[in-house]
Amino acid sequence: METRLGEYVDEFTRRDWQTLPPDAVEDPVRLAVVGAGWFTAEWALPGIERSAFTEATVVTDVDADAVDAVASGTDLTGVPPEAFRAGEVAEEYDAVYVATPNATHLQYVEAAAKQGKAVLCEKPMEASPERAERLVEVCEDASVPLMVGYRMQTDPVVRRLKDLVDAGFVGDPIHVHATMSQTMLGELTGDTDQWRLDPDLSGGCALMDIGIYPLNTTRFVLDADPVAVSGHTRTEHEAFEGVDEHADFRVEFPGSVAAMCTVSQNATHASRLEISGTEGRVVLDPAFYEREERELSVERGDVRMDVEVDPVHQLEEEFAYFGHHLLTETPFHPDGRHALVDSRALEAIYESAETGESVRLTE
Amino acid sequence: METRLGEYVDEFTRRDWQTLPPDAVEDPVRLAVVGAGWFTAEWALPGIERSAFTEATVVTDVDADAVDAVASGTDLTGVPPEAFRAGEVAEEYDAVYVATPNATHLQYVEAAAKQGKAVLCEKPMEASPERAERLVEVCEDASVPLMVGYRMQTDPVVRRLKDLVDAGFVGDPIHVHATMSQTMLGELTGDTDQWRLDPDLSGGCALMDIGIYPLNTTRFVLDADPVAVSGHTRTEHEAFEGVDEHADFRVEFPGSVAAMCTVSQNATHASRLEISGTEGRVVLDPAFYEREERELSVERGDVRMDVEVDPVHQLEEEFAYFGHHLLTETPFHPDGRHALVDSRALEAIYESAETGESVRLTE
Repeated sequence: METRLGEYVDEFTRRDWQTLPPDAVEDPVRLAVVGAGWFTAEWALPGIERSAFTEATVVTDVDADAVDAVASGTDLTGVPPEAFRAGEVAEEYDAVYVATPNATHLQYVEAAAKQGKAVLCEKPMEASPERAERLVEVCEDASVPLMVGYRMQTDPVVRRLKDLVDAGFVGDPIHVHATMSQTMLGELTGDTDQWRLDPDLSGGCALMDIGIYPLNTTRFVLDADPVAVSGHTRTEHEAFEGVDEHADFRVEFPGSVAAMCTVSQNATHASRLEISGTEGRVVLDPAFYEREERELSVERGDVRMDVEVDPVHQLEEEFAYFGHHLLTETPFHPDGRHALVDSRALEAIYESAETGESVRLTE
Repeated sequence: METRLGEYVDEFTRRDWQTLPPDAVEDPVRLAVVGAGWFTAEWALPGIERSAFTEATVVTDVDADAVDAVASGTDLTGVPPEAFRAGEVAEEYDAVYVATPNATHLQYVEAAAKQGKAVLCEKPMEASPERAERLVEVCEDASVPLMVGYRMQTDPVVRRLKDLVDAGFVGDPIHVHATMSQTMLGELTGDTDQWRLDPDLSGGCALMDIGIYPLNTTRFVLDADPVAVSGHTRTEHEAFEGVDEHADFRVEFPGSVAAMCTVSQNATHASRLEISGTEGRVVLDPAFYEREERELSVERGDVRMDVEVDPVHQLEEEFAYFGHHLLTETPFHPDGRHALVDSRALEAIYESAETGESVRLTE
C-alpha cells in the first residue's frame, strides 16, 4: 500500500494528456499574441516561452506602447492590429492567442480564421452568447481548431481532483461550494480606468470575469453541464457603477447536484472549491489563482489527507497543451462548443439576477 | 504585541457571559428532562452534571424503558409523561428541558408554563411557525423564561468568531458559505424507524434538523436577521420518502449579504462556516457538531492564523448559560422570539422549494 502512495505522490503533477515528449519537438507552434496587457506580459509570454511546444513570434495590441514594451529586446515582431488582421505578417505564426477585452475577441478570431490559423481564445470567449456563437462558427466554417483558455483544466491539481471524483472517491456528488474573490482595484492594477469596468467591453464584471472559474471548473470536475441556474448580483462601490461588483449563484447539474458559488471583485482575496458526496469530500483551497500554492484536501471515513503542491506555471501548462494538441492533431477538451455552455449559463445567471427567477438551460 | 497574542490564546475559551462564579453556586437550578433519547443520555445529562449551575432531578419520556435506562442507578426520579404534565413531581424541579420530537415540544412547554417553570427547549422550537409562536406565547403569558437550545451560541469558538466579525476583522461581510452533512442512517442510529423521518413529528428533515445550524449560527455571528430566502430540497434514498434528504438554500441578510448553505442527512460527515468580507476571511471547520475538535482559521492581508481548540462540552456550556442566567435573572440571548425568526425562515425555504420563488421575510 505504501508503494501506491509513493507512486501517487511521484506522479501527482504528471501530464496525463501528453503523448509527444517535449524533447521530440523540433518546430514548436509559432504564436501571434493579441493583447499586450499585464496578463500577457507577466503570465502568457513566460508560459509560451517555458512550453516546449510553443514559441511567440508576433505581438499586437491597440496600444502601440504596450506592444513596444513587450517586444523590445526580444525577437517578437510587433505590429498594429490593422496590419495583424490584414494578415501582413501571417507567415510568421501558425496560431493566434487572443487576450484582449472580451468584446473584442471576435474580430481577432475572425481574422485568424480567415488566415487559416488555429486559435487559443481567452475566457470568457466573448461578451455575449450571440457573439460567442459567431466566434465558434467562424472557426468551424474555416476549419481552424479553437481552444478556449481554461487554465484550470490543465492544472495537474485540478486534473487529480477530477480523477478522484471520476474514480468515485466522493461517491455520488451532492453539493459543491465555490468561492473566488479579489480586490480588483487594489490587488491587480489599482486602476479604475480598465475595460473590466466597461460593460460594453467586458459583458459583465464579477460574474463574467471571475464567476466563470467556479462555473467551468465545477463542470470540468463533475464532467457535467448545468441544467438550471439562478443568481444575484450587487454593486455598492461607485467604481463598479454599471457592472456587478459581487455575485452569488447556484448551478444545478444533472441528478440535482447543486453548486453554490460566490464571487467578488471587491472582497478579500480567496479561492476555494469543495465537492462533497455520499462517501467523501474533496477541497481545493487555494483553488483558482495562477499565482499561489495549491492545497488539495481529501476526506473519507476517519481519514483526511492534505496534499500541498508547488504551483505549476499554469500558462506553461495551458500553452503546452495547446501546442501539443496542435502538433499531434488531437482535439482540445475546452473547445468552442464547451465554452458556449458557459457563455449561455453566465447570461442566464444575469437574467436570473434581473428577474428573480431560476432559468432552465436546454440544448 | 506578543503579550496580546498570549492573552488572546489564554482567554480564548473564556465565558464572557459569566458574572456569577461557578463555585459561588449553592443551589443549582433543578431540571426536569423531557425526552430520554440518545442525545439526552449521551450529551444533555452529562452536560447538566458537568455544569455547576444545573442538576437533573426528574426525567420523563413516552418510552418507559428509556426512562428506566436513564434513571437507573441515579438519583433521578423517572415519571410517565402524563404524571409529569399533571405536575405530580413539580416540587422536584425549577426548570424543564424539552428534547422530544419537534412536534411534541409544545405540549411539554405548555405543562411547564402552567407549573411556572422556566424552559429550555431544543431547536427547532416546534414543527411549524404557528406552533412555535403558540409555544412562545404560552411562556410569555405565564411569565416563564424561555431559552432555545442553540448550543453554537455558547460555544466559545463561535463566540470568538462573532467577536472577530463584530470587531470588523473581515470588514463588511460580503458572502457566507456554510455546510453541514451527516449520514443520518449510518452515523447516528442506523435506524430508519425514527421520528426525524416522520414529517408530522419533525416538520422536515435535512433543512429542519440540520439547516437550522448554518441559519442560526450565521444570524448569531452577523448579528442580523434574514430579509429573504430561497432554497431547494431533494430526496433520492427511499428511507427519506416524504421528507427532504438534501437541501440547499440562500439566506439574504441586510446589506445584501448572501449566505449560501447546503445540508444533507445522507452525505459524508462535514461541517463548515466561512464568512468573507471586504477585508478578511474567517473559517470554522469543523463547525457544527458537538463531538469534534474546533478549528478557527482567520485570514487578512498576507497572514493566516489557525486556532485549534479542544472542544468544550457544548451541552455543559449551554446548560451552564441557562442555569447561570436563571440564577442571575439575566435574559437569554437565544430566546423564543429569536427562535421564531428561524421557524419562519425555515418554513419560507420549504415554501421556496415548492414554488421555485424567493420569499421575502417581513415582520
